[in-house]
Amino acid sequence: MFPNAPLPWIDLSTGINPHAWEGKRADFAALQRLPDPEETARLEAAAAASFGVDPDCLAAIPGAESGLRLLPRLTDAPSVGILSPTYGGHAEAWHAAERTVHIAASLGAMPDVSALVIVNPNNPDGRQIRPDTLTGLVTESRLLIVDESFGEVTPELSVAAQAHDRLIVLRSFGKFFGLAGVRLGFIVAGPGIIAGVRAAFGDWPVSAEAIAAGTKAYADMHWAENTRARLQADCLRLDAMLEKAGLELLGGTSLFRLTATPHAATWFAHLARHGLLIRPFAQQPDWLRFGLPGNEAAWSRLQTALEQGIA
Amino acid sequence: MFPNAPLPWIDLSTGINPHAWEGKRADFAALQRLPDPEETARLEAAAAASFGVDPDCLAAIPGAESGLRLLPRLTDAPSVGILSPTYGGHAEAWHAAERTVHIAASLGAMPDVSALVIVNPNNPDGRQIRPDTLTGLVTESRLLIVDESFGEVTPELSVAAQAHDRLIVLRSFGKFFGLAGVRLGFIVAGPGIIAGVRAAFGDWPVSAEAIAAGTKAYADMHWAENTRARLQADCLRLDAMLEKAGLELLGGTSLFRLTATPHAATWFAHLARHGLLIRPFAQQPDWLRFGLPGNEAAWSRLQTALEQGIA
Repeated sequence: MFPNAPLPWIDLSTGINPHAWEGKRADFAALQRLPDPEETARLEAAAAASFGVDPDCLAAIPGAESGLRLLPRLTDAPSVGILSPTYGGHAEAWHAAERTVHIAASLGAMPDVSALVIVNPNNPDGRQIRPDTLTGLVTESRLLIVDESFGEVTPELSVAAQAHDRLIVLRSFGKFFGLAGVRLGFIVAGPGIIAGVRAAFGDWPVSAEAIAAGTKAYADMHWAENTRARLQADCLRLDAMLEKAGLELLGGTSLFRLTATPHAATWFAHLARHGLLIRPFAQQPDWLRFGLPGNEAAWSRLQTALEQGIA
Repeated sequence: MFPNAPLPWIDLSTGINPHAWEGKRADFAALQRLPDPEETARLEAAAAASFGVDPDCLAAIPGAESGLRLLPRLTDAPSVGILSPTYGGHAEAWHAAERTVHIAASLGAMPDVSALVIVNPNNPDGRQIRPDTLTGLVTESRLLIVDESFGEVTPELSVAAQAHDRLIVLRSFGKFFGLAGVRLGFIVAGPGIIAGVRAAFGDWPVSAEAIAAGTKAYADMHWAENTRARLQADCLRLDAMLEKAGLELLGGTSLFRLTATPHAATWFAHLARHGLLIRPFAQQPDWLRFGLPGNEAAWSRLQTALEQGIA
């Protein structure tokens, strides 16, 4: 579609940290055997320490995606309310499990449901809900799933330490650590849900590469702190460029920024001609989401394209 | 328990090929992003070509284990019959899905069930059932799941090409290709089951490492042919050593051998003192299963221990 775009394309369409945690990869010998359940337990202990939760309340899964698709089947909730707009996989998962799905833009507009799904901080708009508000949403007749896939950049929002079988938390390794291809995530919950997760994936839920990366990366608090600061600084730089181009900043997390413009389709095509792929939204045609450039060449190409403008 | 065993331990307790397919690992860049669904599709096409099936009838999963645990939930079969003894994960999975589980040692002894699970060739005894017998077991009231986790060594037994929504085939990448830590498997079935598998794992079911290894390895027919021959030769060598030691050969595949002896516990301890871990069976106390040694040092240690004997 854009035959003259400079190559390679720069993919700003995701919310994945472009500065990956770069540690030692799994040895080839580790690929040759089934992961020892003790190795998986050490990964889970490292993640649990990072999230501030009891390791018994957490199970490693091959990507947060596989977890969010499992959760409807682990609950008996006949209906779900999904605070939207948000990542579409949640609605797909509950539809696939043949539950009644309600979509609402605010908690006030949400009908009476037996399960609530809230992505916090939210993708794509970055909406944040305070932990005490979240925990207050759990009632005898309503469980809550909090998708904290982007939670590493706002640890103060996490309710992982309060998780139980009716307040279930999803975590993603790949986004903050920049290693989405490794496929690693976690479910944090009480003993009933955790038993269900373990029954669903068995004794070797994640790969040797996931164990090697996750065990070391979650223990690397120094890297995490530096990365949070770096991502915030990069967002300030990106925001300034976007605003100068006349794009209205709606929100985001420090892994992605959401903008609005009546000329979104024109901007999308303009940036594509510069070899820059950003995220459009079919349901919100004036929205564009920008991920962070990963190097100076990418920053420079984005800056040039934004400054040239669409006039 | 065996403080004087020579180190490192030699693990002969699994049925994993010790001579792994050794190709290029995933680039670090591939770990940094979500796998492109087209890459996953290419992996599935390579596996489908190797199995002789239509790629639309196959879905990649993060290990055969995750597939066998999903399958009860994708069928509405209220009861299952599992041809046994066999891998215990099947019974666990159907129990976890709250179905009635029948265990029988022969098809003739199996009660009327709505689903049958048969591992073919079987682990641990290597029992083989002919493809036409298998396909004949599917009736209007009974579906069949064939676990071909060890099927690469006996391709003539596979019913993958006949799979449909009531004849479901499981395949494992890690055992024959010696890369169990990669976590890769496949479900082969009709469009209904495949849609259910895709709904369960989402758009990124397997890791970048699984895609890198699987896509190339399944296309490497030359390696597969050589490996089948090598494993067969190694089994002849192993069988001769086991028989000379007075162990009765019950069966196996060319990835493992099952023996019987009234002195199984003594043999297990004797081999352990030599740093050799083999597979005992709590339910069959006279059985011992041997995997293949992976190098001459391992062969030599096993030979010495077997020749020394337990007298």
